[in-house]
Amino acid sequence: MDIKFSKYQGTGNDFIIINNISNFFPKDDNKLISKLCDRKFGIGADGLILIDNHSSLPFEMTYYNSDGFIGSMCGNGARCSVHFSFLNKIIKSKTKFNAFDGIHNGIVDHDVINISMSDVIGFEKYEDYLFIDSGSPHLVKYVQDVNSIDLINVSQKIQHSNQFKEGINVNFVSKNSDNSFQIRTYERGVEDETLSCGTGAVAAAIALNILSLADSSEINLKTKGGLLNIKFKKSKNKYTDIYLSGKVKKVFDGIIKV
Amino acid sequence: MDIKFSKYQGTGNDFIIINNISNFFPKDDNKLISKLCDRKFGIGADGLILIDNHSSLPFEMTYYNSDGFIGSMCGNGARCSVHFSFLNKIIKSKTKFNAFDGIHNGIVDHDVINISMSDVIGFEKYEDYLFIDSGSPHLVKYVQDVNSIDLINVSQKIQHSNQFKEGINVNFVSKNSDNSFQIRTYERGVEDETLSCGTGAVAAAIALNILSLADSSEINLKTKGGLLNIKFKKSKNKYTDIYLSGKVKKVFDGIIKV
Repeated sequence: MDIKFSKYQGTGNDFIIINNISNFFPKDDNKLISKLCDRKFGIGADGLILIDNHSSLPFEMTYYNSDGFIGSMCGNGARCSVHFSFLNKIIKSKTKFNAFDGIHNGIVDHDVINISMSDVIGFEKYEDYLFIDSGSPHLVKYVQDVNSIDLINVSQKIQHSNQFKEGINVNFVSKNSDNSFQIRTYERGVEDETLSCGTGAVAAAIALNILSLADSSEINLKTKGGLLNIKFKKSKNKYTDIYLSGKVKKVFDGIIKV
Repeated sequence: MDIKFSKYQGTGNDFIIINNISNFFPKDDNKLISKLCDRKFGIGADGLILIDNHSSLPFEMTYYNSDGFIGSMCGNGARCSVHFSFLNKIIKSKTKFNAFDGIHNGIVDHDVINISMSDVIGFEKYEDYLFIDSGSPHLVKYVQDVNSIDLINVSQKIQHSNQFKEGINVNFVSKNSDNSFQIRTYERGVEDETLSCGTGAVAAAIALNILSLADSSEINLKTKGGLLNIKFKKSKNKYTDIYLSGKVKKVFDGIIKV
């Protein structure tokens, strides 16, 4: 079988995206998905995304981690999915779509894609970290300089602590200027630092608000792979109308025989 | 400009291969080449290969490392180049082609590609290592168990020793059975362990013969990415008629806009 795909990246998070509106893709074949994501023997990507049919919306995004298994919400993947669906005429420049954590809005503005994210209700405190669920579970810690952190070692100790049995994403944030911050993220599943994480950026923006380190309801976060912008509205401990924005790029189109 | 390419792997060494017989490719654009090889923002590969026109042979293989600069002879890349040229009807199943270190024979046998390698004349001894130039410069050391070696640390110390100012590839070999051995290779330029190295496998096979650890003139080497076979003829300190053989695979075809 020949599979057509596009390879995308959104602030350095990279994805194989496949138009599966006709439902041809063998969804239960975890080995195939992980092989497609393999960077030497396959196409290579952080994850694989199927643009699936949905009963009442233009599409549903199904996101698989590079291990071949369904992942939770992926913000950068969703941004790339919206651009792919626009180029493939599945949507116009404004859309609603379904993903792991529910319905999202998507807005195409040339190569900048804005998506709405799930409301965030409250947070939990674990030692120095805030726990925030922004579609995926994240720990966030504010530090003076993210570049001085031994991110992988610190994060792997947290993974092995048995406190988070399904693993946890770990983010460190520090300040550049007024509403501009720098972020580094360790992603579970990848078990390594990644160039960027959309849900991590959202969790970090909200953590900065909770910690009174940022007054504005609009925060710019510099990831290793590029710039993300997060807007939100706050009422008591509830954050609504959250939007994640940033550039995406279709890197190439391909056909693979499987 | 749209560039058509194929992505190949040979025992886990992966390459972008471009048909450049018409000489359209901007060869001096090192930044473009390194971006194409980038695993997040580009196609992703260990190296990029142009199938170039040659005055008297069916093609010339021009090999670039992932840093965008011309590399020395790459055995696995040459094996993939022969398969690509066969599929693209540039050659029949037997060919001669030019590469960094001179003219090679190539023979296509389904997905197994056999290529002749440059003659190896003599060797040098550096502490525990044999230095052998098999088209690229290699150190080879025989050990009881390659898996117990701290390959990256050991190799990086050698890189920093100032003895090899242009860097050096480092190989460790151990024995599985009579003419079957296991190899691990640290590649300069990549500055990391790779899944397989064709010229490293050739250097290791010859080192095993020099050290009287293998009697046969045919040696099977298990790399991390698959199996390689090396044949040679020996007369005094000269090794001729060297052939490197193993499977290759076209992983996918693609088009990228640059």
